[in-house]
This record gives sequence, structure tokens and C-alpha cells, in this order.
Amino acid sequence: MTRYMQIVENIAGLIADGSLRPGDPLPSVRKAAEQRKVSKGTVVLAYSTLEAHRLIEARPQSGFYVRAHAPGAAQLPSAGLTRPNVVRSPAPDRMRQTLGDLVGARVTSLGSSFANPSMYPMQSLNKALRASSRQSHYSKTLVDLQLGLPTLRRAITQRYLELGYAVPMDEIIITCGGMEAISLSLQVVTQPGDLVLIDSPMFFSGLQLLKQLGLGALEMPTDPESGLDLGLLDETLSRHKVAACLLMTNCQNPLGFSMSEAKKRELVKVLLRHGVPLVENDVYAELQFDLQRNRAAKAFDTEGTVLHCGSFTKCLAPGFKIGWVAAGRYREAIANRKFATTLGTSVPPQAAIAYYLAHHAYDRHLRGLRQVFQERVNRMSHALSSYFPAGTRVSRPHGGFVLWVQMPAAVDSLKLFELAATRDIGIAPGPIFSARQAYDNYIRLNCSHPWSESLDETLKWLGRSVSDMCR
Amino acid sequence: MTRYMQIVENIAGLIADGSLRPGDPLPSVRKAAEQRKVSKGTVVLAYSTLEAHRLIEARPQSGFYVRAHAPGAAQLPSAGLTRPNVVRSPAPDRMRQTLGDLVGARVTSLGSSFANPSMYPMQSLNKALRASSRQSHYSKTLVDLQLGLPTLRRAITQRYLELGYAVPMDEIIITCGGMEAISLSLQVVTQPGDLVLIDSPMFFSGLQLLKQLGLGALEMPTDPESGLDLGLLDETLSRHKVAACLLMTNCQNPLGFSMSEAKKRELVKVLLRHGVPLVENDVYAELQFDLQRNRAAKAFDTEGTVLHCGSFTKCLAPGFKIGWVAAGRYREAIANRKFATTLGTSVPPQAAIAYYLAHHAYDRHLRGLRQVFQERVNRMSHALSSYFPAGTRVSRPHGGFVLWVQMPAAVDSLKLFELAATRDIGIAPGPIFSARQAYDNYIRLNCSHPWSESLDETLKWLGRSVSDMCR
Repeated sequence: MTRYMQIVENIAGLIADGSLRPGDPLPSVRKAAEQRKVSKGTVVLAYSTLEAHRLIEARPQSGFYVRAHAPGAAQLPSAGLTRPNVVRSPAPDRMRQTLGDLVGARVTSLGSSFANPSMYPMQSLNKALRASSRQSHYSKTLVDLQLGLPTLRRAITQRYLELGYAVPMDEIIITCGGMEAISLSLQVVTQPGDLVLIDSPMFFSGLQLLKQLGLGALEMPTDPESGLDLGLLDETLSRHKVAACLLMTNCQNPLGFSMSEAKKRELVKVLLRHGVPLVENDVYAELQFDLQRNRAAKAFDTEGTVLHCGSFTKCLAPGFKIGWVAAGRYREAIANRKFATTLGTSVPPQAAIAYYLAHHAYDRHLRGLRQVFQERVNRMSHALSSYFPAGTRVSRPHGGFVLWVQMPAAVDSLKLFELAATRDIGIAPGPIFSARQAYDNYIRLNCSHPWSESLDETLKWLGRSVSDMCR
Repeated sequence: MTRYMQIVENIAGLIADGSLRPGDPLPSVRKAAEQRKVSKGTVVLAYSTLEAHRLIEARPQSGFYVRAHAPGAAQLPSAGLTRPNVVRSPAPDRMRQTLGDLVGARVTSLGSSFANPSMYPMQSLNKALRASSRQSHYSKTLVDLQLGLPTLRRAITQRYLELGYAVPMDEIIITCGGMEAISLSLQVVTQPGDLVLIDSPMFFSGLQLLKQLGLGALEMPTDPESGLDLGLLDETLSRHKVAACLLMTNCQNPLGFSMSEAKKRELVKVLLRHGVPLVENDVYAELQFDLQRNRAAKAFDTEGTVLHCGSFTKCLAPGFKIGWVAAGRYREAIANRKFATTLGTSVPPQAAIAYYLAHHAYDRHLRGLRQVFQERVNRMSHALSSYFPAGTRVSRPHGGFVLWVQMPAAVDSLKLFELAATRDIGIAPGPIFSARQAYDNYIRLNCSHPWSESLDETLKWLGRSVSDMCR
């Protein structure tokens, strides 16, 4: 265990057993570093991790304190799956329909995986679009079209460096959103009929993708706070022939957890031992609530077997559909596949994002975004505790803007979905997050919308409906 | 045969047998309509087709005359293939490399399939980008993201109507360029291992696509002026199990011919009889030189088995990467595939194109574009007649901006390609247009660049090099 994790575990233990109580101050960073004979950086890392886990909080000009109470005090949802489970043909097409026609069309959708558009710097982006259009001739060569604008690829390399690891721009290929990054990655490391190891529950478009590519799913039990059990993973990979592993390691959608860096490092090792490439879906990388971003598994990729998929959709520019893949040893294969299937990525939105990154305060925007998402996630979590019947369990995300809600076993989330749709309320029913269409009594809620009376009423109505279903 | 085609054939016959000679006037439209008892519109259509075939020319304020001589008086290139030919694994990946790294990077590339950027209304497009960004919130629902902006889809339906046929906007799905349209179309109508019937030579990214999707190619002999022999097609489809047919029916790249409408109608019938869907690559639809655009095979699609793929890349906005597919009965399947592989298409370039189509003079732009392309194609064709050795044959395109050049058999176009690259001259060597890597002594040249001394020098140098290779 790394030093900072020792500190995290130690303090978390003291809070758990009551040695440290709500409101108690922690030693200052300087003092703790002296006491524990570690660098101040290590303490900062430990404290920010504890903060991300909502065990402590920073008070301006004052220091760190044990939190008064964990928001969303309800228990965590249960994992829902206890053993690895093979599903040869995941996900019916009905899901896209369901989501496209019903969830997506709602005015204030609690079912969508798109954040409320008011969260994004549209004015600045439009300025960037205008400014870059004046500079640009779009007379890009085939090379630029295939791999993406060098200015943008360079900017992404710089973001990696700021997150604390190096990914050369040559490894980066710009894609039509994060979904193309994931799709191309799976296409180059699998053949139809292959098995892909995934966590569960899993974002539904990923399941659609497996289905479309003719891939089977090997669903793994997934702890709602820490992800896969690596021992079980190791054992499972010994027993099953798996072509690739598709995981979200940060702010997993829908569960919300981020794997610790130590665990990611180990994950890469286990997969490498079994010769299984990792398609790392990291489109929420910049939305982690803790001050110190948790690096991706890609940071520990020594052999180029991690295909790291990123996107600007969730954190900066929805609708621009600009993503990328840092594809390691698969870079050439991805370039070939991209060339043959979409040829290249639209230039104006690339130029606009590159311009924005160079001229606007991206980090300030991200800080604001994280803070608002965290507040809204907390607020909705509290509301669910009040409005939903006893036995309801709610996730405690480390980032992002969704909550995963387990309701009492009697509740049928597809029925709830249909009932809500009649009132123009969109929610995402549990079964669409599962290759085997489990999670009957789960829903995912989008917390990115500003609080309002109407949102409060909606949640109250949902709570009453759920209670009715329990009778 | 339609009436206008009867007139075309009749006059072409009179020219061919010398009854009509260079410089002879044709009857006026009014007079011809009276003589032949047809409408003036029919005569206009016939004359414009003859003009497109460069048999006659219009002189302002004067009327139509038999052309002094056909430019590119050299013979047409030969078909290069006499029997259907199965290639199980078309096209090595080296092609992308070759084209990406060498052709694409040239300053004035004669090898690229992208037209000179000066040809496009960049200022107007940038204005449209700015204006539409002010109007737009990019808060598009999942539905819009999946299928594309309704304003743009409606505008495309209107273009179809102007071309003379109806394609409802519900059938249209916006894609990341024409390449995604073609790629999604093939993905939904084939399985890996299937055989796709294609014409030959064929645009190289299509061959790459077949390879990437694990599809075999059934290459058909293709007449450089009229395309497939439909009798042979019928016979071939009786003997081979073919999952789909991928063809360019207008301004075929690289040959340049457009199939007649009568032939397209028959093509649809033959394919329907054999239950084979047509993936119709029509990205040059708007670049036909004749006044009356030749409609696509889609116009004759009664059963929804034609997947018509269009794009704004060649005719309006390169770099924007906005295309579409009118997918007939495969619309749902395409929507599902698109959702899972790229989710949606970037919104700002869609909004900009929709704005341009609504506020700018698209038709005027297209008229100018066609005229300039036709002039430049002619000019280069003349230059090739002068500079290249005897025995060189040059295509006579009905539209677009490329020439297909057959050189004497002794010439190795890959060697010529490499030699030219050392002088920073990019050309497209014949073998990349063939699943079986034939066309050793062919090249494709991009004629879209403005004439210049340096271009003239380049062509002279190429001609000398080809002559040297013949010795």
C-alpha cells in the first residue's frame, strides 16, 4: 500500500470507529507531514482522497474537518451480481428506441446521460468557434483529417501531463466523440463472437456496442465503491478466453466510483499477465470531485496495451462530439480502422476546442462544474432519502452527475419508467444497464439539473410512485 | 429508352458517322422540338447530355454546335478487367499509409481525392458557422444527436426534390461524412466473410473499408463510359452469393462516368430480383457537368433496398465531415448501428451547413464549381495529350474533378509514384484502386487546382518520366 493510502485508511478507520467524530479538526498538512514523516504532497493527496470519499471537508482559511454526516446516508446499492456471468448476446435494440424516443425527448430528463446544457460555457465555445473559423482554412491534409488537428492533439497531451502522466501526441487519434473512440478500440482488439469482460451495471450504449459488434459480455460482480475484485478477475481470466476488457475506471457510469490508483496499477498488471488489452472508457476523467484527479489505468500502461478513450462531451462541449483515443500499440490499427469507417473528424469543432483550451480558463470552468455537480448530486441524494421508501439505497459517486438508486425488491423499474413517461418524466430503468437485463428494481437519475420546485415535485412524485409499488 | 435518350443517341450517331461534322450547327431547341414532336424540355435535356458528353457545345446568343474536337482526344482507358473476379481479402493497409503520408502531405497534390480548398465558399461557411452558433444552444436531445438536426435533414429532402425525386426526411440519418454513411450501410447489410459486388477501378477508401469489415470483393468489369454490363451482372449474381452491391452511379471515382437514368432503373430491378441491397455512393451527385443532374438509382427504389449515401464534403464544405444516408428499409438498423458506434454527429457543422443552405446561394456556388471543374478537367486532359507519350488514354468524366489515365503497358505507376514523391509531387497509383492490385500502368490525377506554370511544369515532368519508363 502506498504511503498516502496508509494515511487514508488510518484516518478512515479512526472515523469509522468513532475516534474521530463529526466536526473534529484534522492536523494541518504541515503538522501531519511532520508527524508521519512524509512529504506534504503525500498528506495533501491523502486528505483530498478522504475529501472525495466525503469523510472530511476543507473549510476555507481553517483546515480540514471530519464531515458532519455523509450525505446520502442511505446504504450503498448492492452489487447485484455475485459471480461472473456470460451473456452471448447482450442488450436488445429496444433500448436505443426506449432511450431515444422517451428519455431523450423529455424537457428536464432525469434519464439522460447528458448533463444539463446550462452547465457548459456555450458563449465561450461559440466565441472559440467564431475565432477559430476566422483563422482556419479547413484545407487540412489527409493526415490531419485522419488523426485530428495537431493543435488539439498537443493540447490533450498537455492535459495528460497536468494529470500527472505522459501520453505522446503521436499516440492520440481524434474521434467523433468518446463513443467512436470506444467503438474503434473494441473493433481493433476483437473479432465477432469474442467475449469482452465488463463491469456491471454498465453504461447502456456500451452494451449496445457489444451487441452491434457481435461480441459476448462477461459481466463481473462490481463493488459499488471500489469496482472489480482483482483476485476474482485473475481467476476469471484463467477460466475464460477474453478478447478485451472494457471498463470505466473513473466515475463509473452508473455507479460513480473511481478505482484507486493502486488498484488501477494492479489491474493493468493482471490484464497484462493474461494478455488482455484494456479499453479504458475515461470520459468522466475531469469530473472527479476530489481536488487531485485520480489518474487513469493508462498512467500505468508500460506495454501499450491500454486504449484510453477520452472525450470533451461531458466536461466541456456537448454536441461537438469530439473525443480521442490514446491507443498504445494499437495506434496504427486504429488509424486504419478510422480511415476506412469515418475517414476523419469534423475540423471546425476540433479547432474551436483547441482554441478554447488555449485562450479560455478551462481549469476554472472544470472547478465550477465539479462543485456544482457535487452539490446537485448531494442535494438529490438527500431528497431521495426523504422521498423514497425505506430500503432505498443510493450510490455515493466520486464524480460525475448521476445517482444509481436501488429500490425495494417489489419495484419494477420498467413499469416505473413507463408510468413516469406518461407524466413526461424521463428516468433510466435498471435493466438497460445490464447485458442480462437484471437490475429490475434499480434506476439511474441525472442530477445535473438546477434545483427547482418542479424538480422537487418530480422527485416527490417518483418517491410516492415507488412507495405505491411496494404495497 | 426515354425520348431524350433517343435524341441523344440519334445525334451522337450522326456525329460518329460523320453526318454531322465539327462546327456544324444543331437545330434550335424550338425547331428540334417541333421536328421531333417532343417538348422543348426534352430537347434541352438531350442537348445538355450531349454537351456533358462533349459532343456539342453551346455558344452564347447563337445556339448549339458540334464540337471542334473532343478534348482529351486520346482514347478512353480500357476497362482492365474482362471477367468478374473474386478477391477474398482486398487492399493491404499499406495504402492508407501511402496515401496518408505521401499523397496527402503534398502542397499541390495531384493524388488526393480532396479538391483544392480555394474552390469552396469558406467565408460564407464561416459566416454560417458564426451565425448558427449564435442561434444554437447545442442542447440537442438524444434524438437529434442520433439522427441529425431536423433542419439539415429537411434541407436534404428539399435537395432531393430539386433533383426530381422524393426522399422523406425520416429516412435520412446524418453521418460523420460520406464515409460513415457507406461504412454503416455495409455494416448493416453484410456479415464478415460476405462478398460485396463492386465496380473496378474503385475509390481506394472503399477497398480499405471492405478489408476492415472482413468482406470479400467481387470486382466487375466496368465500362469507362457507362459502367457495369447489366446482363453480366444478372448472370454473375446467379452464380455468386453476394450480400451487397457497392457502386458509384454518378461521376464514378476514378472513372468519372455517370450511369444513365435508364440504366440505373434497370440496375435497381436486377439487384431487387436477386435480393441484393445497393449501397449507392453518390457523394459526387452535385458535381455532374450536365445542366440536368442525373438522378441516382435511389430515385427508382421502390422497395427501400437502396441505401443512398451523400455528403457535403466534395460539393460544399470539406473538413466539416457532414454526410448522410437515406437508408430505406434499413433506417432502423442504421440508427442502431450509428448509436452504438459514434452515437451522433457533431452539431455545429450541421447547423452551419443548414444555415448556409437556407441563407446562401448554394445553386450558384454549385454552378460555378461545376464550370471550373469542367474547365480544369479539360485543360489537364489537353495537357496530358501533349505531354504524355503516345498510347496514353484519358478518361472523359461526366463530372467531378479527377482523370483516370492509362499509360503504356511498360509504365509501373508505383515506381512513378515513388519517383514523383522525391520531387514532392503526389499522384495516386493505379493499384490502390483495385482489390487485386491491378492497374499497374494507370494513375489518377486531381484536376481541381488552378492552372499555373508550376502545375504545367509538373505535368511536363510527369510526361517525360512516363516517356522515359517506356524506353
